[in-house]
Amino acid sequence: MSVKPHQWMDDAQNSKPSLSSLLTLVEEDLKAVNELVIKRMQNPVELIPELARHLIASGGKRIRPLLTLASARLCTYEGSHHITLAACVEFIHSATLLHDDVIDESSMRRGVVSAHEIWGNQASVLVGDFLFSRAFQLMVEVGSLDILSILSNASATIAQGEVLQLLTSQNLETTHEKYLQVISSKTAKLFEAAAEIGAVLGKRTDQEREALASFGRNIGIAFQLVDDVLDYGTHKIKFGKNVGDDFKEGKITLPVVWAFEHGSIEEKKFWQRTLGDLNQKEGDLNQAIAYMMKHKALEKTLESAGTYAREAQNQLQIFPLTPVRAALEELTCFVVSQAL
Amino acid sequence: MSVKPHQWMDDAQNSKPSLSSLLTLVEEDLKAVNELVIKRMQNPVELIPELARHLIASGGKRIRPLLTLASARLCTYEGSHHITLAACVEFIHSATLLHDDVIDESSMRRGVVSAHEIWGNQASVLVGDFLFSRAFQLMVEVGSLDILSILSNASATIAQGEVLQLLTSQNLETTHEKYLQVISSKTAKLFEAAAEIGAVLGKRTDQEREALASFGRNIGIAFQLVDDVLDYGTHKIKFGKNVGDDFKEGKITLPVVWAFEHGSIEEKKFWQRTLGDLNQKEGDLNQAIAYMMKHKALEKTLESAGTYAREAQNQLQIFPLTPVRAALEELTCFVVSQAL
Repeated sequence: MSVKPHQWMDDAQNSKPSLSSLLTLVEEDLKAVNELVIKRMQNPVELIPELARHLIASGGKRIRPLLTLASARLCTYEGSHHITLAACVEFIHSATLLHDDVIDESSMRRGVVSAHEIWGNQASVLVGDFLFSRAFQLMVEVGSLDILSILSNASATIAQGEVLQLLTSQNLETTHEKYLQVISSKTAKLFEAAAEIGAVLGKRTDQEREALASFGRNIGIAFQLVDDVLDYGTHKIKFGKNVGDDFKEGKITLPVVWAFEHGSIEEKKFWQRTLGDLNQKEGDLNQAIAYMMKHKALEKTLESAGTYAREAQNQLQIFPLTPVRAALEELTCFVVSQAL
Repeated sequence: MSVKPHQWMDDAQNSKPSLSSLLTLVEEDLKAVNELVIKRMQNPVELIPELARHLIASGGKRIRPLLTLASARLCTYEGSHHITLAACVEFIHSATLLHDDVIDESSMRRGVVSAHEIWGNQASVLVGDFLFSRAFQLMVEVGSLDILSILSNASATIAQGEVLQLLTSQNLETTHEKYLQVISSKTAKLFEAAAEIGAVLGKRTDQEREALASFGRNIGIAFQLVDDVLDYGTHKIKFGKNVGDDFKEGKITLPVVWAFEHGSIEEKKFWQRTLGDLNQKEGDLNQAIAYMMKHKALEKTLESAGTYAREAQNQLQIFPLTPVRAALEELTCFVVSQAL
């Protein structure tokens, strides 16, 4: 095989990787997805499209639906179900975001700000339920039991991962392994499903299907690791979240696991007070970042993200080197480059 | 046709209708459903079965899954998918209950008590999501796109109804018509779907399918109306809820719509203060009940429930008078009799 699997990773430092080649390749499809999303979030109960619009319009790079579109293209699928399913993936993601917004009284006191502040917890939950149901309606329209199975399994795994995350919150005993279990479920599972769908639509072999699923899983883990780094971020502004959110919420992410594990007794006490007991004061976030720097916790996390990104690229090697494969390889670099 | 359609309604006053004939008829099936529910709510993340058990074990008469079991029997279905689908209906119902539990800070101050108090809003939402996803996994296992369509449409309608209910909350402009729209969606839709599934499993005609759907819809509306009456209840204890909950939460139900519409200017001011502004003091609930009595609001609501229950019975007339049809007819009386 003539391609150098890591060429994009090396390039990432020099020529900035971007989403633009992928976006150009699936431009028409993505436009159709956006139109379908807008169309299918309509409802006579106006609060539903209003709240959904706030969330969906405000956001993000549509990486998950892009995976579905690109993997369908990679598998030379020629129908139109990938549009519907990409919209469905975006609806599941949006529902998850809305439900993530829901908070308890205690955390509300800590001043966490998000969409629920405008409409309240109840509206966030119920509109999330609507979007989630809508996702299933779209899947049913496509009519593939195989795909319904992938996405209903993914949904259950995501919920399970979210519950697990709730349980690891403020818990400094959380191990690297447990953390990976959380993000593999709550984040990477939807990436995995989004990519696998393309192979099913293209009626590909089990090997190709598993390769795309694994590609999605690995890029999903890399994405979450980068996201966790950005939360203690330096010069970069994090999409849709503020630097320090994870810290304020007592979320135990890999940089924390690493810094805690390698910290002195005094540092461990700091982490216990700030994250374990959520007893935070002015300057604690900067102190947390300083401790992370001292132990290279952010670098180590990014290194780990790089490893998963490379594994994602490796999974694509069984496909011929088409422009869409190249664009997916660049995507893996793009994800990691967000924190560079 | 020799049967007197309203015989059970008339009997309701004398011989107490009960669930016992229905429970006896589907005893084995219901046992299988309960076992399946317990089995499929298991998860390595222990909080999930723990919270689910709290909810599912604590409760209810399993009326929704009973509808699926009974309608499958009525349609002489002989497979085992009705067990899976009845469990699925119970999971959807449980997810809805968990999400109903989620409250906003403001309502928490009003002292509403429910499951979220033990585990928090976030856990209620996420475990609800898990149960909802589990429901879809069970449906996919059954593999009928027709049934997947019924249940995903029902889920979207339920969420839409819940959002609509949120919007009518504390709003005394809510009309009888709007109220019916709310309960047809949030409550009756799952009853409708639960009953319709039986006809699909039994491969019945569109007419029979529509009759069972309509039976479910009508009994669902009757059920909710009775539930609303019980919330201002007299001697009866309401299952799983306390008398006065709706009042405390500012929910606008039919008895309120009726009493407000027929109330004097002074009474309208009372309803505006207590429900519109949620400015309640000692004795207000009793005063509310007194105003309802004055205008026969509870009687009128029960009368309406009776009308829907009779319509539910009428829908069954196209089926031969087997023991299961008789038991379903008794069920409609049982539902109404809860408030007698």
